[in-house]
Amino acid sequence: MTLVDRRNFHLFQPLLYQVATGTLSPANIAAPLRNLVKRQANVRVLLADAIDVDVGRRVLRLLDGELAYDTLILAAGARSHYFGHAGWAMHAPSLKCIEDATDIRGRIFAAFEKAERTEDATQRAALLTFVVVGAGPTGVELAGALAEIARHTLPREFRRIDTASARILLVEAGPRILPNFAPELSAKAVAALSKLGGTVRTDTAVADITETGVVLRAGVREEKLATNTVLWGAGVQGSPVGKAIAAATGASLDRAGRIAVGSDCCIAGHSEIFVIGDLARHEGIQGLPLPGVAPVAEQQGAYVSDLIRARLVNRRLPPFRYRDPGSMATIGRGLAIAQVGRWKLSGKVAWFAWLFVHLMALVRYENRLLVLGQWGWHYLTWNRSARLITRDSGRGVERGEVR
Amino acid sequence: MTLVDRRNFHLFQPLLYQVATGTLSPANIAAPLRNLVKRQANVRVLLADAIDVDVGRRVLRLLDGELAYDTLILAAGARSHYFGHAGWAMHAPSLKCIEDATDIRGRIFAAFEKAERTEDATQRAALLTFVVVGAGPTGVELAGALAEIARHTLPREFRRIDTASARILLVEAGPRILPNFAPELSAKAVAALSKLGGTVRTDTAVADITETGVVLRAGVREEKLATNTVLWGAGVQGSPVGKAIAAATGASLDRAGRIAVGSDCCIAGHSEIFVIGDLARHEGIQGLPLPGVAPVAEQQGAYVSDLIRARLVNRRLPPFRYRDPGSMATIGRGLAIAQVGRWKLSGKVAWFAWLFVHLMALVRYENRLLVLGQWGWHYLTWNRSARLITRDSGRGVERGEVR
Repeated sequence: MTLVDRRNFHLFQPLLYQVATGTLSPANIAAPLRNLVKRQANVRVLLADAIDVDVGRRVLRLLDGELAYDTLILAAGARSHYFGHAGWAMHAPSLKCIEDATDIRGRIFAAFEKAERTEDATQRAALLTFVVVGAGPTGVELAGALAEIARHTLPREFRRIDTASARILLVEAGPRILPNFAPELSAKAVAALSKLGGTVRTDTAVADITETGVVLRAGVREEKLATNTVLWGAGVQGSPVGKAIAAATGASLDRAGRIAVGSDCCIAGHSEIFVIGDLARHEGIQGLPLPGVAPVAEQQGAYVSDLIRARLVNRRLPPFRYRDPGSMATIGRGLAIAQVGRWKLSGKVAWFAWLFVHLMALVRYENRLLVLGQWGWHYLTWNRSARLITRDSGRGVERGEVR
Repeated sequence: MTLVDRRNFHLFQPLLYQVATGTLSPANIAAPLRNLVKRQANVRVLLADAIDVDVGRRVLRLLDGELAYDTLILAAGARSHYFGHAGWAMHAPSLKCIEDATDIRGRIFAAFEKAERTEDATQRAALLTFVVVGAGPTGVELAGALAEIARHTLPREFRRIDTASARILLVEAGPRILPNFAPELSAKAVAALSKLGGTVRTDTAVADITETGVVLRAGVREEKLATNTVLWGAGVQGSPVGKAIAAATGASLDRAGRIAVGSDCCIAGHSEIFVIGDLARHEGIQGLPLPGVAPVAEQQGAYVSDLIRARLVNRRLPPFRYRDPGSMATIGRGLAIAQVGRWKLSGKVAWFAWLFVHLMALVRYENRLLVLGQWGWHYLTWNRSARLITRDSGRGVERGEVR
């Protein structure tokens, strides 16, 4: 059993926005892969980049070699998607990996530093304008954290600018934010974000993003907004290796770059190749594809593991069935929404539930303690102590390769 | 009162090697400057790069502007020095800033990963050979941590290579390691490093460093050693701004780029310009310059602060006098040396003293707790959980500028 990954650590992406906003350090939400499987002597870890598959020879092609397999489980995930505007990536970073997070962190806190120094009021306004594109959970969480930074963390630390005057704009092309939740919860999230000082613009598309601003389009009206910081949380697409694998296996790829799989998580005609997680397009019971969330990936992983063991003893398993444990999103301190079946929660209760669930989802006990400690400290002081402006390779550099 | 710094955080450099070896996260040893002086309303923080001074106009020149002063306190510190071999920096990174630490961390753990993958025995040996140049405290601490990584942290995590077979070489041009300590403590440090599996080579100079190895020279004998990882802990020199300031003020600059100051920490003829810390050459009582260590800088800072206040009320102060609190260095778990006046300590007692002193030297309570927690976890498990291989701008990129 070989675990192939481009990175030497497992990353808990749902808390990545807390690294990007200076609350946590990268290692707090990461766990070294080798350490995780240390005691499983039959598991080998390979730090490598999978690029293609040779279905006939049953060989996974790596950037620098190849690896034979009997059964292949693909869980390469998703990356951000700029809908044909690759040039926007430079000006509007997305949040998928640790380098993205430290890059965004640097941009946010450097914007306040530059605003403190500039003598030009127009430039200062642009530096204190933050635009988040896309109102899924990541976009909402980023906007909420930005508002808290401006209103609670920084005000007493700057002498010339009033950080609380910063403008935080959450832009969503659809009619409401957090569309995977019930409409009344979306409304509560809007209210929560407004309470923190953020502004929500729904039914508003992004027409252009440049170094100096964004062009927003609502209906036929276009508006140019001067801003120094645009964060992208709008779209994801399957990892590039998915395209190669779909071509090799004849599997169909949907518009979001996800590989279609059957109810057993296999590619049609290739019972030896499983695709799980964000890279898989798995039709749910109502004919809608399963969402790209952690519980889907976790349950698919457990199912495939069971299925492979069942095959070894010539047993059959019923098709995979997703049990939705519910969804939650946080906006800020004491402000969250949660939806579990018909139950709908908001406010402090939902927020504590969110904290608990995310803490427990960290795979290492040490990280749970470190995160809890830092959350506690942040709760008492509003300080965000991990707000280092570091030199990162993020800007304009092709992502994805391990150095 | 304006605090000018290139970075937005204070960094506790003595623990930087623990970031470079995966025990701590960067933010654990850093503190945001603005947060530190939040309650001092008369202190302004400016994120800027000081490059020169106009003595006549009493103006500090910044990379992007200037700043008038009545009194100037220079504490720009030191950077690493490759003794005329600037090209070595690319192959043998030094450890002065956070980016250096994450770069080195990536190199160390990537070397083990590559060793696990290669089929070539010669290449594997080079990947498992680590050379640390310079046996001051940083060099010794890095070599000790590398030995612990190879012998204790990684062995059960790799399937093909025996990480414990890694060769850790500490190279020192002088006759003994940790020359600032008593000879018997140097000998204890050598014994401690040997116990961990490291090798010490004194009286050995580095003649060349390339991508594939180092050339060592002992007397007339030269030896080429194939290695993938060389770390530089050999020399420091004053920050470049020191040169400009010396030229502007007529102060003399010593070979290590330090500005000569009088017993009141001022530049001769410029009682309005103080130089403290690693950038200052301050003659001690025995005619030797004070060492570039934290206690000197701290005491000079306190002295200059007292002196400026005394001047305001037309009072005089006696000259600065350094009170040596002693020195300590750690080699590994339970292995440290300490020297306080005539007292000489080693082993577990010195190690606990080292832990305590370094924990208390962190300026933020939260960081003390986080560091203590991670040390405790590391003590119990030998794991180094912050060992992320990230893409860093370290390799071959000019350092020093804030993005």
